[in-house]
Amino acid sequence: MDLQNELLKRSTVFNTYWQQYLPLKKPTMLYEASQHLPFAGGKRIRPFLAMISCESVAGDAQKALPFAAGLELIHNFTLVHDDIMDRSQLRRNLPAVHVKFGEQAAILAGDLLFAKSFEAILNTAVDFSIFKQLQQDFINCVIAICEGQQLDMEFEQRKTVTEQEYLEMISKKTGALFELAGKGGGLIGGGNPQEVAALKTYGMALGFAFQIWDDYLDMSSTTTTLGKDIGNDIRNGKKTLIAVHSLSQASGKHKKLLDDVFGNRTASDHDVMSVYGLFRELGSVEYAQQRTLQYVNEAKAAITVLPQSDAKELLYQLIEYTVQREK
Amino acid sequence: MDLQNELLKRSTVFNTYWQQYLPLKKPTMLYEASQHLPFAGGKRIRPFLAMISCESVAGDAQKALPFAAGLELIHNFTLVHDDIMDRSQLRRNLPAVHVKFGEQAAILAGDLLFAKSFEAILNTAVDFSIFKQLQQDFINCVIAICEGQQLDMEFEQRKTVTEQEYLEMISKKTGALFELAGKGGGLIGGGNPQEVAALKTYGMALGFAFQIWDDYLDMSSTTTTLGKDIGNDIRNGKKTLIAVHSLSQASGKHKKLLDDVFGNRTASDHDVMSVYGLFRELGSVEYAQQRTLQYVNEAKAAITVLPQSDAKELLYQLIEYTVQREK
Repeated sequence: MDLQNELLKRSTVFNTYWQQYLPLKKPTMLYEASQHLPFAGGKRIRPFLAMISCESVAGDAQKALPFAAGLELIHNFTLVHDDIMDRSQLRRNLPAVHVKFGEQAAILAGDLLFAKSFEAILNTAVDFSIFKQLQQDFINCVIAICEGQQLDMEFEQRKTVTEQEYLEMISKKTGALFELAGKGGGLIGGGNPQEVAALKTYGMALGFAFQIWDDYLDMSSTTTTLGKDIGNDIRNGKKTLIAVHSLSQASGKHKKLLDDVFGNRTASDHDVMSVYGLFRELGSVEYAQQRTLQYVNEAKAAITVLPQSDAKELLYQLIEYTVQREK
Repeated sequence: MDLQNELLKRSTVFNTYWQQYLPLKKPTMLYEASQHLPFAGGKRIRPFLAMISCESVAGDAQKALPFAAGLELIHNFTLVHDDIMDRSQLRRNLPAVHVKFGEQAAILAGDLLFAKSFEAILNTAVDFSIFKQLQQDFINCVIAICEGQQLDMEFEQRKTVTEQEYLEMISKKTGALFELAGKGGGLIGGGNPQEVAALKTYGMALGFAFQIWDDYLDMSSTTTTLGKDIGNDIRNGKKTLIAVHSLSQASGKHKKLLDDVFGNRTASDHDVMSVYGLFRELGSVEYAQQRTLQYVNEAKAAITVLPQSDAKELLYQLIEYTVQREK
């Protein structure tokens, strides 16, 4: 099994499928704004996870498509609203929705994508009891994402955040949707309770690994690679695991540098680079890498209960890929 | 049957019921922001309509409570986001959510209320086929509201809007939720297709009457009565039916006054009052009243097919009340 090949095959199927939820109608500006991010690419990792989770319990991935569309619509809806709240300018190498279409249309476009996500899961061909479980999980996940975003914003205003607080925040903001992808895929595929629980645990661990690695990439990449604003995280005082670790370790002149630059919206590029350097010097980047590997191992351990299959092999490869990718 | 008494009885039951969807949890600011409007009062007309529609086809109003909660959550979610978009400062005599809690928390609070609305309808005790219909109608309604809000904002930027365009806009922004309340109440109550269609038509006509009357009240009331910013509609160039009519009728110095003041955010209080006066002088206020009465008659005609009942009597009284209320 070649992960990239399998990811491409499924994302092609997925991209064709979910277009039905992204029509171009009147009023044109609203619908164009809602299409902007979904059609700007994206890795489709959440739909992929839902599909292979379904396959891993001998289900038909086709059956997971509506649910996968729901996940990706939720993901895009939260990106649109988060970018407004975080005042981010760039996303996927394009202007953020609110930058291109204005904040009003961006709020509405997010709301529209949110509504469409429920239309998607309504099309899942399962019985009412499974459907109720899926929809309640879906709702709980969106609520968790809202809570996570609120915590993330509140953390930016605080001087320090504990690692435990940070982990709670990303479990909600990022982990919940991965967890739902794994669990939902398993439910739709007809997995037994033990298998569904394993895929749920795998999803959450993947989410942790993915987010911590993402924060690491933000530290080490250029605008061209990631399509996000570089330095924003430093200037906004974003409490990534790396930052949380450095804040807990720094003293003396290091502490002063962080006090002066971290969370300072007018910090110079030079100062921002110094903070990047400090994160390495204090071992925080390495620490984040180690913690990521722990989640990788946790994810792998969780799915040992699944029967051997190509999909299971892909689950192993996906978690490895998550911490090898460079964008 | 005394409408006010019956409305109060049902809104008391409703207010107790829907609190379960409005918990106070951590992060506190998010949940406080989401409670702000729901706990600030409100007439609960949409839940009331859903409940008496259910009763009018011999259903148990209790069964309509989760659905009614979903409607009111959607209503509040859209108010929170609309107030951000429209830069409104006041709502129900209190600061708007974004004024009190900041725009970031207000965006999230709206999203949270939206998610909770789907939790509410998920608790409706109906079979899967009815549930699917309800949820699809619910989704279509939210999409219509988004489209209506987008049109409303676009209309503010335009010099003129036809009456037909205006009616399309309010059918989406306001009518859709009333229509859903009537139809959904009928479906949950076990109404036959003819009855459900009648309640749907009634709901939409009620929505038209309600919105046109609301715009009329905005013209004629003080801040204390309605809890909204007076003059905002004139300064924002809001295309109410009254404004649409005046814009189509005005010529000469009247046209010049409208050109200068209507849609001018820095217009003086004196100029705003002159425009109010012009709306009366051109017969636009009277025209809006007449049009409202047409919808009242349409609503009444629609429900003749319903069996005689106390609930039917309340439907008649509700449409009358809608155009007699002063707030």
